[in-house]
Amino acid sequence: MTKGILYVVSGPSGVGKSSIIKEAMKRLKGFTFSISYTTRKPRPGEVNGKDYFFVDEKTFDEMVKNNEFLEYAEVHGHKYGTSKSFIKEKINEGFSIVLDIDVQGALNVVKQMRKETVLIFIAPPSYSELKKRLLNRGTEKMEDLKRRLEDAKWELSKINEFDYLIVNEDLNESINQLISIFIAEQIKTERVTEHLGNYSFFKFEEE
Amino acid sequence: MTKGILYVVSGPSGVGKSSIIKEAMKRLKGFTFSISYTTRKPRPGEVNGKDYFFVDEKTFDEMVKNNEFLEYAEVHGHKYGTSKSFIKEKINEGFSIVLDIDVQGALNVVKQMRKETVLIFIAPPSYSELKKRLLNRGTEKMEDLKRRLEDAKWELSKINEFDYLIVNEDLNESINQLISIFIAEQIKTERVTEHLGNYSFFKFEEE
Repeated sequence: MTKGILYVVSGPSGVGKSSIIKEAMKRLKGFTFSISYTTRKPRPGEVNGKDYFFVDEKTFDEMVKNNEFLEYAEVHGHKYGTSKSFIKEKINEGFSIVLDIDVQGALNVVKQMRKETVLIFIAPPSYSELKKRLLNRGTEKMEDLKRRLEDAKWELSKINEFDYLIVNEDLNESINQLISIFIAEQIKTERVTEHLGNYSFFKFEEE
Repeated sequence: MTKGILYVVSGPSGVGKSSIIKEAMKRLKGFTFSISYTTRKPRPGEVNGKDYFFVDEKTFDEMVKNNEFLEYAEVHGHKYGTSKSFIKEKINEGFSIVLDIDVQGALNVVKQMRKETVLIFIAPPSYSELKKRLLNRGTEKMEDLKRRLEDAKWELSKINEFDYLIVNEDLNESINQLISIFIAEQIKTERVTEHLGNYSFFKFEEE
């Protein structure tokens, strides 16, 4: 069976990553979701092992120490981490996974799983457009906005470490581009022939 | 301006290359056709510099000697060649080009223009399926058929030198895969940022 692919989609916040990913995944088969570990308490209705793996601080920190995360981050006082073994298992079962994470996290993932990982950067058409989009969300405190824009400068400077660059000018075009990456990566010769063995694809029925 | 890309599509004859290419190119912009040099005489209605560059044997052989062809071949006693300078000029003007050539020719092209070239192999679902398709065309002499099948064995052994492998089981899926390759290759970071310079994409408007 062909292995799955780990697509890591990243870019400054406010760029529209989530909507693009959601729509692209709807139209393709063979994808599964990554289930993160978190120290946050379950909200009503959330199921352990389905929405998240809920763990306490001690367990989480232990996992960090044992290098069990592909990447982890702290958001509003709660820790979130992507389990290396979970991802590897799904990939080996033939599922592809999309991770929607920050640029720092993306670069950490690729260090550990270069071969299975495709790095995709989603950029705003321009820096001023990003500023406009963040302002328009209206949900940000001014200091958060400033920090996000500062972060974005650093994030944008890392574009060249990514495999693909989607400039999100038109949502439908961006979705189409992400789907095209998913399809094209699946038919890269090295991936198709890996599970068949070199040259053996047609050999067996030559006679 | 972004440079164009040279897509070289190859595979055994009878595999359905031409129909896939024709449909895929219809749906995308920014492509132009390669105009080959040939020693064949123009047919009624054919225009020099539009359908082909018509040259005599002496000129063609001179061009071969001067290494002016990316690849050339002899078919039914006539020579056909793809001009290196023609292709490079179009690529630099921002046009992408699709070359539909044999496997040997494809490998020659990539030796000379690796950076600008994307190699795509179109394979039959199986060797016996290829046999069936060639038989069904009904236009082949038995000895031609045998030669094509012999050639196919060698061609299929070169799959691993290609960037992408499309297994043509379902025509529409194959067309969709080729289009996805075209789109995904255009947004590879190295291609997008090449004409912008490293990191300069957003820098200019930071202030």
